[in-house]
Amino acid sequence: MMWIDGGVCAPRGFRAAAAAAGIKRPGSTRKDCALVVSDVPASIAGMFTTNRIQAAPVQWSRGICIRGIARAVFINSGNANACTGQQGIEDAQTTAAFVAQRLNVAVTEVAVLSTGVIGVPLPMDRLLAGADACVAGLRKDASAAAAEAIMTTDTRPKYTALEQSTGGARVRFGAMAKGAGMIAPNLATMLCVITTDARISAECLREALGYAVRESFNCICVDNDMSTNDAVLCLANGAAEGGEILPNTPEFEAFTEGLTAVAQAMAKELVRDGEGATKFVTIRVHGTRSDEEARQVAAAIAKSQLVKTAFFGEDANWGRIACAAGYSGVLFDPGELGIRLGGIPVMHEGMPTSYREEDVSRVMREAEIEVEVSLGNGPGKAHFWTSDLSYEYVKINAEYRS
Amino acid sequence: MMWIDGGVCAPRGFRAAAAAAGIKRPGSTRKDCALVVSDVPASIAGMFTTNRIQAAPVQWSRGICIRGIARAVFINSGNANACTGQQGIEDAQTTAAFVAQRLNVAVTEVAVLSTGVIGVPLPMDRLLAGADACVAGLRKDASAAAAEAIMTTDTRPKYTALEQSTGGARVRFGAMAKGAGMIAPNLATMLCVITTDARISAECLREALGYAVRESFNCICVDNDMSTNDAVLCLANGAAEGGEILPNTPEFEAFTEGLTAVAQAMAKELVRDGEGATKFVTIRVHGTRSDEEARQVAAAIAKSQLVKTAFFGEDANWGRIACAAGYSGVLFDPGELGIRLGGIPVMHEGMPTSYREEDVSRVMREAEIEVEVSLGNGPGKAHFWTSDLSYEYVKINAEYRS
Repeated sequence: MMWIDGGVCAPRGFRAAAAAAGIKRPGSTRKDCALVVSDVPASIAGMFTTNRIQAAPVQWSRGICIRGIARAVFINSGNANACTGQQGIEDAQTTAAFVAQRLNVAVTEVAVLSTGVIGVPLPMDRLLAGADACVAGLRKDASAAAAEAIMTTDTRPKYTALEQSTGGARVRFGAMAKGAGMIAPNLATMLCVITTDARISAECLREALGYAVRESFNCICVDNDMSTNDAVLCLANGAAEGGEILPNTPEFEAFTEGLTAVAQAMAKELVRDGEGATKFVTIRVHGTRSDEEARQVAAAIAKSQLVKTAFFGEDANWGRIACAAGYSGVLFDPGELGIRLGGIPVMHEGMPTSYREEDVSRVMREAEIEVEVSLGNGPGKAHFWTSDLSYEYVKINAEYRS
Repeated sequence: MMWIDGGVCAPRGFRAAAAAAGIKRPGSTRKDCALVVSDVPASIAGMFTTNRIQAAPVQWSRGICIRGIARAVFINSGNANACTGQQGIEDAQTTAAFVAQRLNVAVTEVAVLSTGVIGVPLPMDRLLAGADACVAGLRKDASAAAAEAIMTTDTRPKYTALEQSTGGARVRFGAMAKGAGMIAPNLATMLCVITTDARISAECLREALGYAVRESFNCICVDNDMSTNDAVLCLANGAAEGGEILPNTPEFEAFTEGLTAVAQAMAKELVRDGEGATKFVTIRVHGTRSDEEARQVAAAIAKSQLVKTAFFGEDANWGRIACAAGYSGVLFDPGELGIRLGGIPVMHEGMPTSYREEDVSRVMREAEIEVEVSLGNGPGKAHFWTSDLSYEYVKINAEYRS
């Protein structure tokens, strides 16, 4: 596996574009529309928010993914097209139809995603003008521009690409994402678009994406909330040399490994750029009866406000970590609980060790911190990535909409 | 029902005391021990943390409540006696035995509770000296002093009392509590002690307390974490006139109503004095299929970091409220979702109303805010009390231990 330059345009047969449509404020020159296009029909798979309230574009793009073939994804920031009723559904369709007509493809081959303010109808005139500019401006070197156009409270664009050998062939993956809070509605959303030039069926792609998302976006948290617009889309256009990737083969495993790697890179970037984040914390849990149990414990620790605030304070507060494990809902023997911070044991068999405060303080001052929690002798293990909870988080979220 | 002066000493036949034992820092003059004693054996019931890691005093006092008879509750702040292994268990027993011997009652009649730093053995010499001073100083007017002694990060003592007519008789309830965060370990805990002079069996008391806690401490949140030491104890000594309160009678209902009222008063005080709290927010949910569903939605909204930060920012961010309802796990038709802020409809049938921003802004600037969420025509309803999430919360929890 080799990291390469670029983002969604890195795989063969993909182009992209970005434009400033003034969606949030007419006349603004900030890029707020992005288009990703495959030269040929691509397999598409998607994972979407499980929120009961789903934005109109999520409903539209879910349909595209069921069908499994797509040529393009159009994304706007500045307006989430959520809680917009029947008008919102029609606006999502109109957008897809407009892009399809300009690209001369079927409307059912155009996915749309939106992120931004909730409850305000899309400014369709400006949006379609932006889509028009995107179609006119499609090019091979627009990975960064597209990643920039989908940002909301993000402080930097997030994109990456890699090349992976799958048996004889070398396939490429490209990705872009936006996040900042896992959600920030009256702003919404985590979005990620992944492209690959591998040849793979939509069904197979769905399986690989399911695995990749479980190991990436589903084990991060910034603020635990889940938006109405969260979506991960993956398009595979088969432009690379080599045959089709079939299920239960070494090629499929190598493909899934590459896909998971780009997804994890994006997921970590979301945590690093989490609203107000000053620390990147990895929680590793092992010794539970199953991976699912380990995941449950890791999630409870990663989501705890008290744990996250302690990291911001650079305070080796293992008591809060033990406590979150205790209320995670997983049964374990408290007498077998062990905790390490940056490799230093601070709790062993349920009781504090005699660690040197200055050693642990040094660990806590690092920008990246590793927490290891051991709960017994079971085979289960899992990890979770989280950020700290800072003044800046409160500031951003208390003041955003006003 | 009539609110009266005092706290745990307000019911007949209860005395209390407080002392400074220097538990956290030798020589400190801050009160950190409290004792509540009934003149005669009392029925006792308790509700304890469901955290898998339970502090030694919780394990001890749970045993007392199973037996159902008690004369005294001894509480210390400054040290939680949690994650202290076998030594912790022995220390809790030693404390109970010491108090029992000095009061000339059975060791099985003395409950003990602790709150404070985790993972540090109790300083038994100083603790027992404090217990000794408490026994020597028992008096009828120590409600406030006892409430003060159990504080940790609380900014003020919390206690209340009321008199309730149960048929012919008038019984009194007194209570004291501490909280601040629902938990703050390496500090732990929410604690509450309720006294009443009603005559009621331990079994009956258990049922009434279960109801009262469900309607009070179980529908508040400050920071969602659940400590290793959380406990609510209720002692009923029968010193009031009137016969025994029997199950399924109007007297039992009146008793439960009084008990619930003091518990709710204490629960609200915990939220009002929540770490860094500047707002007291009531979330009311109705229209679900069951009360349990309504409770689940109310809890999701009350616990959302984004909702709580919006309240701190005085931002009428109904999108975050809708979003939290959406991911609560309860199925509902998004097209039936309605939200009112301070009585003003801001969302109706899944879409924003045309409310006047200045009206809603006025509501958001209040210290107490009411949020009403309607999800359809079902009979379910529930409420939850929560606070906002402020800079001060982050400050307190980032800096506490250091």
